[in-house]
Amino acid sequence: MSLTTTLPPRAVIREVGLRDGLQSIQTVLPTARKVEWINAAYAAGQREIEVGSFVPARLLPQLADTAELLAHAKTLPGLFASVLVPNLRGAEAALAGDADLMLLPLSASHAHSLANLRKTPDEVVAELGRIRAARDASGRKTLIEGGVGTAFGCTLQGEVPTTEVLRLMQALLDAGADRVSLADTVGYADPGSVSRLFEQALKLAGDRFWCGHFHDTRGLALANVHAALQLGVHRFDASLAGIGGCPHAPGASGNTASEDLAFMLEAAGVDTGIELPQLLALRERVAGWLVGEATHGALHRAGLPQHFQAAAARAV
Amino acid sequence: MSLTTTLPPRAVIREVGLRDGLQSIQTVLPTARKVEWINAAYAAGQREIEVGSFVPARLLPQLADTAELLAHAKTLPGLFASVLVPNLRGAEAALAGDADLMLLPLSASHAHSLANLRKTPDEVVAELGRIRAARDASGRKTLIEGGVGTAFGCTLQGEVPTTEVLRLMQALLDAGADRVSLADTVGYADPGSVSRLFEQALKLAGDRFWCGHFHDTRGLALANVHAALQLGVHRFDASLAGIGGCPHAPGASGNTASEDLAFMLEAAGVDTGIELPQLLALRERVAGWLVGEATHGALHRAGLPQHFQAAAARAV
Repeated sequence: MSLTTTLPPRAVIREVGLRDGLQSIQTVLPTARKVEWINAAYAAGQREIEVGSFVPARLLPQLADTAELLAHAKTLPGLFASVLVPNLRGAEAALAGDADLMLLPLSASHAHSLANLRKTPDEVVAELGRIRAARDASGRKTLIEGGVGTAFGCTLQGEVPTTEVLRLMQALLDAGADRVSLADTVGYADPGSVSRLFEQALKLAGDRFWCGHFHDTRGLALANVHAALQLGVHRFDASLAGIGGCPHAPGASGNTASEDLAFMLEAAGVDTGIELPQLLALRERVAGWLVGEATHGALHRAGLPQHFQAAAARAV
Repeated sequence: MSLTTTLPPRAVIREVGLRDGLQSIQTVLPTARKVEWINAAYAAGQREIEVGSFVPARLLPQLADTAELLAHAKTLPGLFASVLVPNLRGAEAALAGDADLMLLPLSASHAHSLANLRKTPDEVVAELGRIRAARDASGRKTLIEGGVGTAFGCTLQGEVPTTEVLRLMQALLDAGADRVSLADTVGYADPGSVSRLFEQALKLAGDRFWCGHFHDTRGLALANVHAALQLGVHRFDASLAGIGGCPHAPGASGNTASEDLAFMLEAAGVDTGIELPQLLALRERVAGWLVGEATHGALHRAGLPQHFQAAAARAV
């Protein structure tokens, strides 16, 4: 019988609803709505937001206003604004906008990488090297995160060997990534595989390990977060109302729902800095903008427990 | 940073859909359907089923056929059939039907206990003593489980002190309970509180600790199971399609969904003996009988991952 493990005292929820969420749905949210979302998330205590993706507007018209949103996010004191960049061109836009962090996704599944990124994983590693050179030449402090996706398997290729996931993570670090992450892109992870892979990734990357990204496709997102949390991982991607997620499983749940994750963390005594009633109010507002789109999550239906106390209130 | 914890090699999912599930919904399932459910669950590998509750039929007409179902369950080799009993009279029926186990629920919240059971918790403890005497006099081997509910708080009373939960668990054991359990009746538990309370309960009850019962009211059921699992707990209540659960939170999710729990366990290498494709097929059949009722769970929408291997297949 194991002893009770300790959870970290604080954790960060990186809001990815504006990127991973909105890119996966039909509705194109006007820029003014997105600004309202960012402002309300900030007011609710969220301090890391992925505001968009620097991909060509013809590919993802939903995210065409990323530069504008980044500029707005930079006006909010203490907000750490990140963007996704698919390549050097995107990175140049992120550097021009002085993003705090840019995330370059890599897919450890070769089949998924070729199908989605039209590059082999090692070509993405090489691109990260070029992005690093551009960042260093720019004088910007923008951090470079290399995100290893399909880390727990892939709908196209099936199994993705752990050795390959770790090899690519090391390659990203060697090529100049400041931070590395793991993503369960298609919802294949379970708490056991999370414990095993994250433990090895933490050994490899140490303090440069940045974030865990889980999808709730099969209902395990929060259990997976719990497993990673016990290893000391203290930053997780999540999407308000769980929007977005895996396009390969129609009807499936999307990303980890930010509000459910914040509830789990706060209830377990892990301070997120988030005011849950405000986040729930924002969830209702955003869900109202996305009528007809699939939204997810449980907390918004049941509400907070009576006498609920946030982690910070109990620590006093 | 903690080391990866180990999970038990095997765990049991006690199916409570026929009791906790059906008692909470409007549809009255005909006995023939319930028999079909029990048979198919058995064929899918489930070996512990709570077939009903020996409460007066005028209170719960949905469960009026409990004696008949118990008799049927006893004909299936190796099936461990349990029933809920609210009092000595119910226990006499369970003994008459030669149940393998009878569960007497106790609510650690005094307010909840008075409102739902019309007894104080200590009056329930006394009733368990009378049930023990009846069991011993009967010569039956029927195990007596004392289940401590509202163990993580209560919608009526708010906080329920851990000291009171543990005092009542000890009192149940002292009064003659063979087994004790913990239930998060209203969905207030989180992985942190589960770790803390279950660790103390295991210290107190040792091998007589039997089962964890979680509701997915706020989306944390599987994360809570994961926390308990890490302490060596290896039996959990769950309800097919997540039916049932907390009547105090309208629209909220119900019990832990059996199929999602089985998936999490099997994916994490914990052998449940359950054939997931068969359980998913049964879920579809049962959901078809319950049109108009709220069902829950994620796995049935996304399906099993490609190349999914059950725990037993991988252990070979």
